[in-house]
Amino acid sequence: LKAGRAIEKIYIRYGAEERFVAAIRREAGQRGVPCTTADRRKFAALERELRSGPNAAQGVIATIVPVTALSVTDLIDRVYQASDTPLLVLIDGISDPHNLGAIVRSAECAGAAGVVVPERGGAPLASIAMKAAAGAFEHIAIARSGNLAKAALDIRQAGFMLVGTSDRADRRYTDQTYDGATALVIGSEGAGIHPDIRRHCEALVSIPMAGKITSLNASVAAGVVLFEIARQRSDGEGSSGGAEE
Amino acid sequence: LKAGRAIEKIYIRYGAEERFVAAIRREAGQRGVPCTTADRRKFAALERELRSGPNAAQGVIATIVPVTALSVTDLIDRVYQASDTPLLVLIDGISDPHNLGAIVRSAECAGAAGVVVPERGGAPLASIAMKAAAGAFEHIAIARSGNLAKAALDIRQAGFMLVGTSDRADRRYTDQTYDGATALVIGSEGAGIHPDIRRHCEALVSIPMAGKITSLNASVAAGVVLFEIARQRSDGEGSSGGAEE
Repeated sequence: LKAGRAIEKIYIRYGAEERFVAAIRREAGQRGVPCTTADRRKFAALERELRSGPNAAQGVIATIVPVTALSVTDLIDRVYQASDTPLLVLIDGISDPHNLGAIVRSAECAGAAGVVVPERGGAPLASIAMKAAAGAFEHIAIARSGNLAKAALDIRQAGFMLVGTSDRADRRYTDQTYDGATALVIGSEGAGIHPDIRRHCEALVSIPMAGKITSLNASVAAGVVLFEIARQRSDGEGSSGGAEE
Repeated sequence: LKAGRAIEKIYIRYGAEERFVAAIRREAGQRGVPCTTADRRKFAALERELRSGPNAAQGVIATIVPVTALSVTDLIDRVYQASDTPLLVLIDGISDPHNLGAIVRSAECAGAAGVVVPERGGAPLASIAMKAAAGAFEHIAIARSGNLAKAALDIRQAGFMLVGTSDRADRRYTDQTYDGATALVIGSEGAGIHPDIRRHCEALVSIPMAGKITSLNASVAAGVVLFEIARQRSDGEGSSGGAEE
């Protein structure tokens, strides 16, 4: 904290030494770093995940942001430098780190130039997500935003069409065109896109379900829409001469 | 074992009582049930997953097949009863149970009528896969096959076009048509489709990667191809009059 490192979150073991912890909580509060108390079982699981020896953490674990996160403004500048019609992905409240990592991986594979994640309320950009992303974090621009609704508005005002996914949308994802600068908003596994963000979306699309199950895994759903976007964009290239490639 | 239940796999803790274990191994061998030895750590993880108390398992865990699995022949009969152009999914060696469950879920959502899984060598059809499938196992026909190459051949001879996914295929998955009876073969996360099964495939398709990462998560890749199949089939319906639905 004192070195000013970009700390994502601090976990404090329930019952950890009080005076020590109070100083950390105070410092973290001043810097806007979220602190959470973990019971012994959860804390031990974190230690195992981080391959820390038992008690090596002395009751406090901080997860750092292992990627260079940009501001939303810098992200917008960066992706427009590479393309006139960039593709962005806004990830709103995905809580499972495997899903988060798989979505970033799919975004990179589908040709997205950048991803925006919330500073709080989503899965941490830590080891599980990094592993699930299979290296994608190194090849895609990441922005973290403390206010995702504001970020959505900024992105829209920068010329992106905001498209949200929703189980209840009437429009099929395949009936939407994505040829301009596009920002795809992916909502959380249960609640979908937050209303404050959804109201900035110019289109809401759904994936038709043919069977009895009413939803896909969140990372599969994101992948399906991302590759429909890639398909349409690649067909566009094809019709201008590159179809045989 | 003595009651003749459909047992999927038996895990024996390394060092478990010898005479006891020898009898189980013998009985399992006669019935063709695979036995594997797990070290203490892996065995304890299994106990936790099954919410069994410590040592309640006495060193031996058997996972049963929690779904009614059909023979491949019965599966083929069943799916042709529902449609002239059924969609099947053959899952060849997916080892991660989350991926297995998510693929079955995606298959059900994309309108597939059945799934074929290997009896050995893949993730168990046990609690993790069931949870990841979100109930899909109850709404889709499942066959288990002791010889997936033979199953692939039987399915092909029953009139299905076998389409395999491969990183190295030249044909894009979107350039393939899937309007007849189709069986999609999904290969394992690392090695892809086994050569003995691949040689029965009439088409091999790949998902073009736009970025630097060369592959998707296995369940995302399966979902992307499954929903391309659903898209093409639904467009077909649309052109015969139902486009506005």
